[in-house]
Amino acid sequence: MLVVMKAHATPEEVQAVCDHIERLGFRAHPLPGAQRTAVGITGNQGEVDRGNLEALPGVAEVIRVSKPYKLASRDVKEEDTVIRFAGTDAVIGGNGLAVIAGPCSIESREQAFTIAGQVAAAGAQFFRGGAYKPRTSPYAFQGLGIEALRIMAEIRERFGLRIVTEALDSESLERVAEWADVIQIGARNMQNFSLLKRAGMLRKPVLLKRGMSATLEEFLMAAEYIMSEGNYEVILCERGVRTFSDHARNTLDLSIIPALQRVSHLPILVDPSHGTGRRDSVLPMARAAIAGGADGIVVEVHHQPEAALSDGPQSIYPGQFASMMDDLGRIAPVVGRSLPRGIQVNVAAGAS
Amino acid sequence: MLVVMKAHATPEEVQAVCDHIERLGFRAHPLPGAQRTAVGITGNQGEVDRGNLEALPGVAEVIRVSKPYKLASRDVKEEDTVIRFAGTDAVIGGNGLAVIAGPCSIESREQAFTIAGQVAAAGAQFFRGGAYKPRTSPYAFQGLGIEALRIMAEIRERFGLRIVTEALDSESLERVAEWADVIQIGARNMQNFSLLKRAGMLRKPVLLKRGMSATLEEFLMAAEYIMSEGNYEVILCERGVRTFSDHARNTLDLSIIPALQRVSHLPILVDPSHGTGRRDSVLPMARAAIAGGADGIVVEVHHQPEAALSDGPQSIYPGQFASMMDDLGRIAPVVGRSLPRGIQVNVAAGAS
Amino acid sequence: MLVVMKAHATPEEVQAVCDHIERLGFRAHPLPGAQRTAVGITGNQGEVDRGNLEALPGVAEVIRVSKPYKLASRDVKEEDTVIRFAGTDAVIGGNGLAVIAGPCSIESREQAFTIAGQVAAAGAQFFRGGAYKPRTSPYAFQGLGIEALRIMAEIRERFGLRIVTEALDSESLERVAEWADVIQIGARNMQNFSLLKRAGMLRKPVLLKRGMSATLEEFLMAAEYIMSEGNYEVILCERGVRTFSDHARNTLDLSIIPALQRVSHLPILVDPSHGTGRRDSVLPMARAAIAGGADGIVVEVHHQPEAALSDGPQSIYPGQFASMMDDLGRIAPVVGRSLPRGIQVNVAAGAS
Amino acid sequence: MLVVMKAHATPEEVQAVCDHIERLGFRAHPLPGAQRTAVGITGNQGEVDRGNLEALPGVAEVIRVSKPYKLASRDVKEEDTVIRFAGTDAVIGGNGLAVIAGPCSIESREQAFTIAGQVAAAGAQFFRGGAYKPRTSPYAFQGLGIEALRIMAEIRERFGLRIVTEALDSESLERVAEWADVIQIGARNMQNFSLLKRAGMLRKPVLLKRGMSATLEEFLMAAEYIMSEGNYEVILCERGVRTFSDHARNTLDLSIIPALQRVSHLPILVDPSHGTGRRDSVLPMARAAIAGGADGIVVEVHHQPEAALSDGPQSIYPGQFASMMDDLGRIAPVVGRSLPRGIQVNVAAGAS
Repeated sequence: MLVVMKAHATPEEVQAVCDHIERLGFRAHPLPGAQRTAVGITGNQGEVDRGNLEALPGVAEVIRVSKPYKLASRDVKEEDTVIRFAGTDAVIGGNGLAVIAGPCSIESREQAFTIAGQVAAAGAQFFRGGAYKPRTSPYAFQGLGIEALRIMAEIRERFGLRIVTEALDSESLERVAEWADVIQIGARNMQNFSLLKRAGMLRKPVLLKRGMSATLEEFLMAAEYIMSEGNYEVILCERGVRTFSDHARNTLDLSIIPALQRVSHLPILVDPSHGTGRRDSVLPMARAAIAGGADGIVVEVHHQPEAALSDGPQSIYPGQFASMMDDLGRIAPVVGRSLPRGIQVNVAAGAS
Repeated sequence: MLVVMKAHATPEEVQAVCDHIERLGFRAHPLPGAQRTAVGITGNQGEVDRGNLEALPGVAEVIRVSKPYKLASRDVKEEDTVIRFAGTDAVIGGNGLAVIAGPCSIESREQAFTIAGQVAAAGAQFFRGGAYKPRTSPYAFQGLGIEALRIMAEIRERFGLRIVTEALDSESLERVAEWADVIQIGARNMQNFSLLKRAGMLRKPVLLKRGMSATLEEFLMAAEYIMSEGNYEVILCERGVRTFSDHARNTLDLSIIPALQRVSHLPILVDPSHGTGRRDSVLPMARAAIAGGADGIVVEVHHQPEAALSDGPQSIYPGQFASMMDDLGRIAPVVGRSLPRGIQVNVAAGAS
Repeated sequence: MLVVMKAHATPEEVQAVCDHIERLGFRAHPLPGAQRTAVGITGNQGEVDRGNLEALPGVAEVIRVSKPYKLASRDVKEEDTVIRFAGTDAVIGGNGLAVIAGPCSIESREQAFTIAGQVAAAGAQFFRGGAYKPRTSPYAFQGLGIEALRIMAEIRERFGLRIVTEALDSESLERVAEWADVIQIGARNMQNFSLLKRAGMLRKPVLLKRGMSATLEEFLMAAEYIMSEGNYEVILCERGVRTFSDHARNTLDLSIIPALQRVSHLPILVDPSHGTGRRDSVLPMARAAIAGGADGIVVEVHHQPEAALSDGPQSIYPGQFASMMDDLGRIAPVVGRSLPRGIQVNVAAGAS
Repeated sequence: MLVVMKAHATPEEVQAVCDHIERLGFRAHPLPGAQRTAVGITGNQGEVDRGNLEALPGVAEVIRVSKPYKLASRDVKEEDTVIRFAGTDAVIGGNGLAVIAGPCSIESREQAFTIAGQVAAAGAQFFRGGAYKPRTSPYAFQGLGIEALRIMAEIRERFGLRIVTEALDSESLERVAEWADVIQIGARNMQNFSLLKRAGMLRKPVLLKRGMSATLEEFLMAAEYIMSEGNYEVILCERGVRTFSDHARNTLDLSIIPALQRVSHLPILVDPSHGTGRRDSVLPMARAAIAGGADGIVVEVHHQPEAALSDGPQSIYPGQFASMMDDLGRIAPVVGRSLPRGIQVNVAAGAS
């Protein structure tokens, strides 16, 4: 259920509605919009008495949300969610394009700084790098952990990049939340509901990757798990799904972009690196993602991919990244977008 | 096996090589290139004696083609295949972008002319319309047959559009070959090997749609069936594959574009209409296809989709088509392409 | 629509109903049942006037069939379809279990006779062998054609086995219909609607294999294409579908057996050879198919699989086949089935 | 790497080998077999010096394990793993068949006792019931938690059934390990590597369900995560995978049974309830699973499925369960298995 407030409802009236809902044993989710605020109601104990709510001051109407996802739905919040990062012009959602780049894993301070410097110069606003790695084999490199987080914190200081890194469980979540700007939840954990709920209790943006066999509805329900705990800054990320198709590591399902945008206000990024698994497919699919309406991309970059500890074959070279940024900057206006100003300056700076 | 001729080999030397191959009971496929001609050898009776071939005048070398597809492979023909249409600037492959548009089915002369006029005005070079329809149900509309072919022939005269339409079997193939400019073989017939061989005996371009569960290799082997009979003008078309993903009619597998371009010289188009099945996903996916490197698109357009006899929900309005052409024209230079000149003039004409 | 006749309606009354339907421009499909006859009506020109039909002598009621498949549906024919073969106790459907065995391809008279003798001795009632082969590569062995059909006709004479072989197109269909007892239509042709219609015009049982990405509904619609032309003896065959799962050639979808039995009266066989592609998985999956309720199996047997011209790795040895027959005979009573009597005699004979 | 001990190696010699391995910084996994003990070596720091190991007393040979899964592989342990439960004749693996039955969720003491009594009477050795439920929606019933665990502990006392229930995260894992006999890890957590490692540190059998899009190798790598921490009692469970096929909730991939048995010694169960999602498909697929070689089944039973809080449509009635047990008992000898003796007594008792 959704309580739509009148356009001129006061903050006190909104608060009174929330209090009323909480007293009934439900959870209230105030969602400010450009025109007016709406208050989502969640809780599984059944239906709220609509009459009492509609009688409260400042309430315009109470409506039922028919979709299984509520807070993630456009029914509840019509305008696109835009996530801003204080002190930067980096933004995810809205008219800007977000570019998150970096190595699969943080392997060393030197490796990380080299790549960070190059992607910053080419215009990335976000740096990604694995500290805790979900590896298919228990015997494979599992990440540098806290050491990697410290390296990335230095990178934020040095290059002004916001940091995105993955949390695997409650322990790593706590640390990632402390050190990073965006918490990534990986495809294999998309239905790790305990982890989703814990991430929902934090107040940091969460980048949620689509599970390898998740439907659109399951994807949004996973976002809903996070949002139902009060963290509304969820960023969706398409990274390819499992199919019979064997020319790529996964099948990048770009048509989920418009499908998600029809029903949800959450931003949607695309990861062409995991989505294809092949270096020479990354650039075409990055362009395709932006042309298809994505809010940005997540891409693996490595200066020595042949020596990378993980995912070398899908990492692009810094030079390819710069050329990709150039292409994306040219496609952006066709879809009513632009790369942030700061970045275009950086591109010029990077060339010098 | 492939006989690579010297750069200055004479036509007579090429012919002598072909004659020699045929005398051995194999089939010779002379494939002219920008630098030099190569002659592909097919036939399943085993290995040819390389020594005798290498001794022939004008022969540079004889090499083994390791891939299961031979004539479709870049090993045999390095340069992109470009298909031209006499008397027009329409082209499929190379630097141009091909746009094939029209209704799912030809329903009447009036319907076809209305749509053809609008897509021509907006810049399409090719008109598509079903005369023979492969329908899941034997009780559904099966197409107007020969009458539809006659209507499309008139459309070619009237609007200068090249005609693309589907053949279902040997009877319809014969008729389509007579009336159309490009013969379409649909996804359901991608492994109808008899039909492929018959299409291979013709000398008309064949638009081959990817089967719903075809791998890249199976797709190229289907092209090889056509080419092995001597028809080298095959146009590949990605139209979505079958997966668990349920937000779209099919899962459009755009990453097959760079994967195909790595191994094959054949042009590759994308059909975002069947690929998504939803009108509001067609435009984003058409843009994504071109940004991803496709040689063009195949798109369903209908002026009254709600009244269409087939595929209404995925047909875009003529106005949307015009706006799509505008977007594609702006993305084209980013990928080193351009819409044909004639078309841009038409766009202007269409706007008047 | 379906006209249900009264229990004691005379053949003349049934005929009068059929005549009436045909005069209206529709097609009548009289379907005799244990209790009473029903007459299916097909044709795509819209609704029949129910009132006139209900007034005809012998008519009990006229009902609408809501499923897209009509003649294949249990709504139209409640009892299981049982297909008998004159002069033998071989049967497909009902309480018997049908076993169709033989090599992928007929390679020579000697090879075919060797295998046929062994599978007959072990109790198979049907012999399968490819005369016309749908091969992914145009350069692969395409079958012996008419010569193979002649060999199989001799095998019928010699061993009393009914012959099952695949038709690929209208030419091979004509020949197969002339020489074989059951016409197979392969997975790649499941939506070759022209071929289905032609097979529907014949009066020979058709074994229809499920397409690699066909849904249950599409599978039954393909059967409907055959039935709509008047050939009601369609045998469905599950042979595995395309999925991401890579431990087998295809993913054998056994749960389609009860799903099909709920909605259709047609018999359903399982092909564990194509369904798994691995010799040591064939026996477990043959047992699973029968335990899961299938009406029989289709299995590839070769005495020298390592030398087979096609599908060697999935062909079982004759000794394995005999042991499989023994297992199936023991599972049969658990599912209320039995292997035909004649076969059990053969098993004993084969052992001497 | 694997150290194969001589047939008559003493426990002290085995221990000395383990000590040597641990001193080198690796982990030693002694795996006793019928003929002789082998010691698996894991750890990702590279290769061990084979020469030093081969020189130790009692060592027969040192061999490299080429598969990515080591401890789960038949290369390391040739004999089937058999899991026994002290004080009962319940067994998972080997010649016995394990039957795990019960409701999707524990809803109340009364509901659980009613169902437990009925499945015990019909011969189940294990009772399953959800205490912590992984639900797609945050607003759906999430399970009774510790209360459900207490109810199941009472059921163990009362009916002698061993308890199987799912753990979702480290908190619930701790509790489940305390109260249950077998810890279930669900499909959505198959690649929750943190949870797998924690389960590996326990010394309780783990029932690991296959992820919805997991390959055979990924499935065994998940088992390897558990085993690499020293818990070797892993039970695999096929429960259907995600495909395009829409006649069932999932596509039950029974051919993974022989494929797993070729490469792994771990027992493999099948869950036909989640595998099909439809009550009337459960019995045929349970029979198919056993006929296909599975070591047992996991099945949802509810006395009032229409009132169940979760998974009602796939729960069978107790009467259907009893009839299923009868069928399985008849198929068992065909595959060289038997239901445990105690159970057959129970069946008779249940009938009285």
